[in-house]
Amino acid sequence: MALILGIDPGSRITGYGIVSASGTRQEYITSGCIRTASSSTLPDRLAEIFAGVSSIILEFSPEEFAIEQIFMARSAQSALKLGHARGVAIVAGVNAGLPVFEYEARKVKQAVVGTGAASKDQVQHMVQVLLGLKASPQSDAADALAIALTHAQTRHNLGKLGGLSPRSFSRGRIKEVDQ
Amino acid sequence: MALILGIDPGSRITGYGIVSASGTRQEYITSGCIRTASSSTLPDRLAEIFAGVSSIILEFSPEEFAIEQIFMARSAQSALKLGHARGVAIVAGVNAGLPVFEYEARKVKQAVVGTGAASKDQVQHMVQVLLGLKASPQSDAADALAIALTHAQTRHNLGKLGGLSPRSFSRGRIKEVDQ
Repeated sequence: MALILGIDPGSRITGYGIVSASGTRQEYITSGCIRTASSSTLPDRLAEIFAGVSSIILEFSPEEFAIEQIFMARSAQSALKLGHARGVAIVAGVNAGLPVFEYEARKVKQAVVGTGAASKDQVQHMVQVLLGLKASPQSDAADALAIALTHAQTRHNLGKLGGLSPRSFSRGRIKEVDQ
Repeated sequence: MALILGIDPGSRITGYGIVSASGTRQEYITSGCIRTASSSTLPDRLAEIFAGVSSIILEFSPEEFAIEQIFMARSAQSALKLGHARGVAIVAGVNAGLPVFEYEARKVKQAVVGTGAASKDQVQHMVQVLLGLKASPQSDAADALAIALTHAQTRHNLGKLGGLSPRSFSRGRIKEVDQ
């Protein structure tokens, strides 16, 4: 059994979802979203995302971290905003010692709905069905659960082929300029 | 007197520079760059940047953090990469309790060279002259020192008008979805 944390990052709302995966079985643990205060400055919003993701990891002790991989963005401006939030969420995971796995949006839709062209509503609905939830999760929480479910399926399939290779944390090299 | 850390973020190389500012006087303390291993995955590179910036703060105890503000990027892809690195560097600063100040590239060039259209070589040269360095700093380290110098000038000018208002750290609100 493994606890998987899925993250759907955003500068205003970061969705999170945790599922436990055991073989082909996946169980709902928790989900929700980290809402940054609209009155906050960018640095404060990023600190809120970092603190939020870190505290979820501390509370639920997930063992693996899955996040959407982004290849395209609407504009350079939105890519920059999303990049800030996504980078911060990833670092909160790596700093907590979790291996990070990235999945394309198409791959997530394919895994959960069966087609890479699925709508957000279809993803939300299938997450509810697959996890046997009484109500439909909030949209960003559903996306995060969908990412966690995608990783649960992938790790099960790869497990049969010899397992995943988690990424290890390494320190940066700091070079000082002599004067 | 205040110690100012300037950061020029990048996914491969993050430049840093520390100057001490006292009235109109600025003194060179240190500078260099955090080079991420080219063999590293994105999550590891981001953790290297976070660890690098955090360890510089721990070693030199700067009191204020200055970073370039980005309005335009060449492409969505480069904006996303830069956003990741920039978000992570900012969070390292906020988490260490430093107030974060952002300056446009034009403003930095204006402050250091006297024209917002200055070249990278001109910035590098003027940083060397203004700080009385024997040699020219590495390009990313020079950009970081230029950002720190810009903040030193701005804080001096604003100080005459009643001071800066540093931003405070605040926690994110985590909302759980009830099932």
